[in-house]
Amino acid sequence: MYGAGDVRVEKVPDPTLRERTDALVRVARACICGSDLWPYRDKPAGSGAARMGHEAIGIVEAVGSEVRRIKVGDFVIMPFAFSDGTCDFCHDGLQTSCVHGGFFGMHTEGAQAEALRIPQADGTLYPLPAGDDSLLASLLSLSDVMGTGHHAALGARVGPGKRAAVIGDGAVGLCGVIAAKRLGAEQIIMLGRHPDRLALARRFGATDCVPERGQAGVERVRELTGGFGTHAVLECVGSEQSMATALDIVRPGGAIGRVGVPHYDTIPGAQPMFYRNISVGGGPAPVRAYIAELLSDVLEGRIEPGLVFDRVVDLQGVPDGYRAMDARESIKVMVKP
Amino acid sequence: MYGAGDVRVEKVPDPTLRERTDALVRVARACICGSDLWPYRDKPAGSGAARMGHEAIGIVEAVGSEVRRIKVGDFVIMPFAFSDGTCDFCHDGLQTSCVHGGFFGMHTEGAQAEALRIPQADGTLYPLPAGDDSLLASLLSLSDVMGTGHHAALGARVGPGKRAAVIGDGAVGLCGVIAAKRLGAEQIIMLGRHPDRLALARRFGATDCVPERGQAGVERVRELTGGFGTHAVLECVGSEQSMATALDIVRPGGAIGRVGVPHYDTIPGAQPMFYRNISVGGGPAPVRAYIAELLSDVLEGRIEPGLVFDRVVDLQGVPDGYRAMDARESIKVMVKP
Repeated sequence: MYGAGDVRVEKVPDPTLRERTDALVRVARACICGSDLWPYRDKPAGSGAARMGHEAIGIVEAVGSEVRRIKVGDFVIMPFAFSDGTCDFCHDGLQTSCVHGGFFGMHTEGAQAEALRIPQADGTLYPLPAGDDSLLASLLSLSDVMGTGHHAALGARVGPGKRAAVIGDGAVGLCGVIAAKRLGAEQIIMLGRHPDRLALARRFGATDCVPERGQAGVERVRELTGGFGTHAVLECVGSEQSMATALDIVRPGGAIGRVGVPHYDTIPGAQPMFYRNISVGGGPAPVRAYIAELLSDVLEGRIEPGLVFDRVVDLQGVPDGYRAMDARESIKVMVKP
Repeated sequence: MYGAGDVRVEKVPDPTLRERTDALVRVARACICGSDLWPYRDKPAGSGAARMGHEAIGIVEAVGSEVRRIKVGDFVIMPFAFSDGTCDFCHDGLQTSCVHGGFFGMHTEGAQAEALRIPQADGTLYPLPAGDDSLLASLLSLSDVMGTGHHAALGARVGPGKRAAVIGDGAVGLCGVIAAKRLGAEQIIMLGRHPDRLALARRFGATDCVPERGQAGVERVRELTGGFGTHAVLECVGSEQSMATALDIVRPGGAIGRVGVPHYDTIPGAQPMFYRNISVGGGPAPVRAYIAELLSDVLEGRIEPGLVFDRVVDLQGVPDGYRAMDARESIKVMVKP
């Protein structure tokens, strides 16, 4: 990506092992993330080329001399952050704060490619059992969006019998619906307005959809919740407006789980938030920590997050994939190199 | 209180029952709260008289016709908020958001008095077993500061083996130390600078004390915690500076429990807070929900929060009690009408 709207497919040498803890992965499937659309909209021209993409599944092609657990030939999920698997934060299940960690496509090359170097391969990659091709899309979602939706639900403290609202009908918000349902929410309200996405939200477990925005949307959520709002709000957008809506629809004592990359500097309403005992949590999801738990649900067919992929492109099709997601013609684009 | 620094003791008629759900309580002990010092410092002259005080224990003198559970003669704790005990929020243990609730000294007369009308008596008052006079101070602390310290610790997600920091060496901060220890924190760092208060903090379970402020204090906490800060931060002050310090000393994945009434409008650092997966929670403590749990520890001598009272005054002594707390000559002043 050279700048806003300027995505080019270029032939570059395959990556090579650099550290003894690296692996090389041949990408089977990658995808375009909603968060990739932020630079697609505002990356300055002339700011240099960024190699994009941070979600993939693939086959391990080579490993460095200190890689012990991951083997050549393993079929693996690559979470969007790499992590050593051994530091205090990894032990605590917060791999996105690993002391030797970083983010793919920022601290490495991008995954929208044929092959990728994986730092800290032993801590990062999750080897999969031999599986069925029909599951590839859902397995790919475990590299980011499904784990991120789950993180939003945990940050929002979804639990049995709770009322939850999901702000954002992108792939993460839709996976947030799956996560809220999985964790036992009794009511799940999707705030969004695109009929195809709302249909998918309902299929995933949303009980109500609110297409209204701003104050009208807030009032609609209050009507649907006996006047008080929801215990849990999954904030899956990251704009100032979506955060303001989250604070307006959360019930006293409730929690907001933020997973939309925030495009605002301060959280407003520090006083009403205090008087209403609202908590705000969330951040980059440690999806590595969640794979084992979510994978069994995928393998046994209890959840089908792969349905968020509604378009498949090859590498040449990636620029058009960005365009389609930006135009909201597509929820999420899978890349098959 | 007529204005900043202007506290007067006046003879007024005793309150009477107004609603059928009211009770009248003869105050045995009341006290002055750190939060009373905010208006003591900034209440405009000419803004009218406020009847102050929201913490008390006492004897029930009369009950309205719809009061069922509370009886004349009961010795009771009066939490700083009144609540009906039956609404959804009371059922959830968030009595400070009760739909028929409010705060003593704001929505009622004040507790720094001989007698007080108690709205929603059945939901509000907590009857005590006949007890020993030596426990009065600790029982009184359950009407606010001990429950508030506990709420800070819960908001900061203190648990076994966690590192906790407490910002503020007032009565609430000191009770926060008791709460953190009770919940199993392995390290408890008190940020404060008054030797008598730090001595009490150590007696309550603080393992380290940090008298430095600002950046020097932040660095000291990091040194004491292997460089990463604490899992839990109990923010017991409410100033912009104390909140900034909380965000600087909390470890990635950690939580800040706010109980200091916030004197700032926004929470800064929405982006670093996100990238570090920090959560911020807390608010007015539903102390009514915590009495049962904390009371058994008081009655069995496992905790002694009453030690935060280091001065006793009669009603005539209340103005000097404010002065002494404001000058930090006293941690917390008990009022014996």
